[in-house]
Amino acid sequence: MLETAIREFRRLLGQQHTLTDEASLGPYRWCTIPIQRNIAAVVRPDSVEQVQEIVRIASAHQTHLYTISTGNNWGYGSAQPVRDDNVVLDLSRMNRIVDVNTELAYAIIEPGVTQGQLYRHLNQNRMSLWINPTGAGPNCSILGNTLERGFGIGPNGDHFLAQCGMEVVLASGEILRTGFGHYEGAKAQYLYKWGLGPYLDGLFTQSNFGIVTKIGVWLMAAPESFEACYITCHSEEQLTLLVDGVRHLMSTGVFQGPINLIHRNRALLMLERYPWEQMGDQSPLKESITNTWAAQKKIGVWSGVGAICGSNAQVQAARKTIRNILKGKVDRITFLSDKRLQLLRRYPKAASVLLKMNVPDLLKTLEGSYGMLKGIPSEVALPLAYWRNRRTPLPSSELNPARDRCGLMWFAPVVPMTAKHVSEFRQIIEPIFARYGFEACLTFTAVNQRCFDCTLPLLFDRDNPDEVQKAQACYAELLSSCKREGYLPYRLGVQSMDEEIATEDIFWNVVHRLKVALDPKGILAPGRYSP
Amino acid sequence: MLETAIREFRRLLGQQHTLTDEASLGPYRWCTIPIQRNIAAVVRPDSVEQVQEIVRIASAHQTHLYTISTGNNWGYGSAQPVRDDNVVLDLSRMNRIVDVNTELAYAIIEPGVTQGQLYRHLNQNRMSLWINPTGAGPNCSILGNTLERGFGIGPNGDHFLAQCGMEVVLASGEILRTGFGHYEGAKAQYLYKWGLGPYLDGLFTQSNFGIVTKIGVWLMAAPESFEACYITCHSEEQLTLLVDGVRHLMSTGVFQGPINLIHRNRALLMLERYPWEQMGDQSPLKESITNTWAAQKKIGVWSGVGAICGSNAQVQAARKTIRNILKGKVDRITFLSDKRLQLLRRYPKAASVLLKMNVPDLLKTLEGSYGMLKGIPSEVALPLAYWRNRRTPLPSSELNPARDRCGLMWFAPVVPMTAKHVSEFRQIIEPIFARYGFEACLTFTAVNQRCFDCTLPLLFDRDNPDEVQKAQACYAELLSSCKREGYLPYRLGVQSMDEEIATEDIFWNVVHRLKVALDPKGILAPGRYSP
Repeated sequence: MLETAIREFRRLLGQQHTLTDEASLGPYRWCTIPIQRNIAAVVRPDSVEQVQEIVRIASAHQTHLYTISTGNNWGYGSAQPVRDDNVVLDLSRMNRIVDVNTELAYAIIEPGVTQGQLYRHLNQNRMSLWINPTGAGPNCSILGNTLERGFGIGPNGDHFLAQCGMEVVLASGEILRTGFGHYEGAKAQYLYKWGLGPYLDGLFTQSNFGIVTKIGVWLMAAPESFEACYITCHSEEQLTLLVDGVRHLMSTGVFQGPINLIHRNRALLMLERYPWEQMGDQSPLKESITNTWAAQKKIGVWSGVGAICGSNAQVQAARKTIRNILKGKVDRITFLSDKRLQLLRRYPKAASVLLKMNVPDLLKTLEGSYGMLKGIPSEVALPLAYWRNRRTPLPSSELNPARDRCGLMWFAPVVPMTAKHVSEFRQIIEPIFARYGFEACLTFTAVNQRCFDCTLPLLFDRDNPDEVQKAQACYAELLSSCKREGYLPYRLGVQSMDEEIATEDIFWNVVHRLKVALDPKGILAPGRYSP
Repeated sequence: MLETAIREFRRLLGQQHTLTDEASLGPYRWCTIPIQRNIAAVVRPDSVEQVQEIVRIASAHQTHLYTISTGNNWGYGSAQPVRDDNVVLDLSRMNRIVDVNTELAYAIIEPGVTQGQLYRHLNQNRMSLWINPTGAGPNCSILGNTLERGFGIGPNGDHFLAQCGMEVVLASGEILRTGFGHYEGAKAQYLYKWGLGPYLDGLFTQSNFGIVTKIGVWLMAAPESFEACYITCHSEEQLTLLVDGVRHLMSTGVFQGPINLIHRNRALLMLERYPWEQMGDQSPLKESITNTWAAQKKIGVWSGVGAICGSNAQVQAARKTIRNILKGKVDRITFLSDKRLQLLRRYPKAASVLLKMNVPDLLKTLEGSYGMLKGIPSEVALPLAYWRNRRTPLPSSELNPARDRCGLMWFAPVVPMTAKHVSEFRQIIEPIFARYGFEACLTFTAVNQRCFDCTLPLLFDRDNPDEVQKAQACYAELLSSCKREGYLPYRLGVQSMDEEIATEDIFWNVVHRLKVALDPKGILAPGRYSP
């Protein structure tokens, strides 16, 4: 059956875009998670019509298709299917920016459109619109991250919330347009999320119910004024006050979109690599080393970062409000604007003295992280993946943790935005990390006014079988312990999906019924958040 | 079959809560739309377990259930089913406020909980939390409006967006908990909307896929400072500038939630009743009368209203930003605070001279509309329904347009937030209203940064068969013309649903497939946004 399907794929797409040889399949197996799926083939269509045809062929020959946008789902499975023997449907050639509306601030994009590509497009065409990038770097798909319900910090940070209008190829080969999109000439299909009748878009996020080939994405009109707000706490004890302060700030709407609270260990990961020699090949990292590094770089135990923007008056008021609410709770609040950043660049030494910070060192990451808040994608957060990687010197650009055999599994549970819950949560996860010899490197992202997404990277040496095994056991224990205590992840890696859905739980059972309704033969991405 | 089902309902609920006699069924047929369904019976459960049992009975005997929360869906069908011979499942006895979390600002409520009830609960328990009421008055269900994706103005105005977590009884009798709610002890089930895996909540809005018995609703922590912003334009020509100004303001995040742009005719409807005598029984209303009224009451051609809140500094900045952006575009911008309202109340005459407004007259509606922005439900917008009603003197409280035989059909299309679209849209609808002898009474609600929901009341004398017929024809033409030009309604009345879904459109076809998956026997609310 597969043979026939591949023959037909080849007839449709040509030899060049129907890959079956080992050399071509290799990159699709690159993964930061220690899993290795057998991939039957890769097909690379260029149009919605080709996707429809591929689905019809797959259906006729009972062939499983596993869709990726650009396949850079690092730490969650990259391009690897949940199960063996799928044909990977690679949509990266479908990378058209179909339209950008500058008046109403949105773009219509295909799956292959990357953060870098949309940023460059806006920039080159002098469109005063900002995207909201994730930390995964310029080469990652916007649509792919949106369907996984990923997020960035700053305006429009909840990517699914900022998505409006979908085009979906169903397992039947039909095209479904959601919201108002199925009405001829609809004027608000990219402006109003819900449409008329049941709101269906949610079905096509974290699922295998269809192949999304186009979405509308809301962008932000460049504001009159923009500043990044950096918060520093020098002791662990302050976290309690900081969390309550952040909840208060979020409820006042001072920040446009999510903000990040970053633990020192997490910040250091982006700046350093594991000192294997100094540690005599032992792990986890000694606290004395962390302390030295943090002191050198003048990094606080907890740092916060968020975007404030709007009119000049609004930004001024936001600054004042942040200072008021956090007064006595944190050690330092710094606001950075384009102007201030220029001064730092010009006079790094003077600034170091004035700010009591190591400015040249700071600038390395600051420029990247500041730019991200303004919609400029950056690789600044990617070196993290290389933390325990001994093999390569860190590439200077075009980082690809999967290609470079980094060991990374993300675990990202949701935590209520109260000091009590944050503390309880840490008491669960930190001993687990320690027991398996890994560093707990926390970031709490205030994705809305009421909860944090805590993104925890589990970083390991992919070439050390013992460490790999420990990482797997650590991940399993984190997941089961957090689930037991009610801290559920907002997203899963492909390695956990099959176990998650194999329950008597009515929710997953309903998901299964819906799957059967839309994909009765189970052609699409079997096991991806649904049977 | 129906007979047996009713016998079993009676065994379950008692005689008292299984209604079949004409007198008891009467109120369920009250409707502002000229439709009259045959209602087979009414069942009034008190608990989720009873709902499950009712569904099982209905399923066993192929009986159709039509769910209402409080049945006050005025202008969209009230309690009337889409089709004949349904058993109305009235959930108004299930009116528990299950929990209110003051720290994280949310409530968990059952279907029967009304706006007034939740407001009083918060007030009596001195909880500093605000709800977001609609104009439908204190006796309307919050859950019901949320499932219809209704909205209010001010903070948390998009009610579906502010909903988090659902408990749903399926046609199988099973209970589905969405988001993280199906995990035992989940900590963030009312804090994080999307959960893990496909996001399903959207399926249970504007649909007949299940019976929602509980939702979480996000509330607003009472802010340090609150002001209502009122904008006045004296000429139609200013609308262009106003719309562009509002789009700019919305994108800066100055207003917390939706704002309203209200045409003079719409404002007058809430203050006056149709002057049948003066008009010699003719319609529509002469512009000379509107002009006189508007002059007396000093109402501008276009008014705007929205809430600004946050810290003192933020509110001050918002005022400044609004003045800057609307400078030269509008005639007057007024900000109202608790303090200022008190002054008006105390010195109405002096205020009239100072403000060049008729303050005593103004206060009649002002206090209600101002309060609504602060989360106090009010009947201030309900007199509108009585505009052409000749029968009753307007009741002084407990307005119920359905009981009082008001003629009202809502038509509410979505319009992109540009002057060009607003103008094009008006050119479609205004001639239609005029041709059938009705007043076009526009409100544009900026439900997000990119589009307006335009709520248009079609008001008629329910006792005049000729006018009723004209109203029906007018509604049909509005709907078909707007659809043809791409201005789709965000919601439908029960009278339009069957026609809407009877198409070859893939969207509605997919909706049908999902319906069959969840309710294979078609027990639940046949025809409600789905077969």
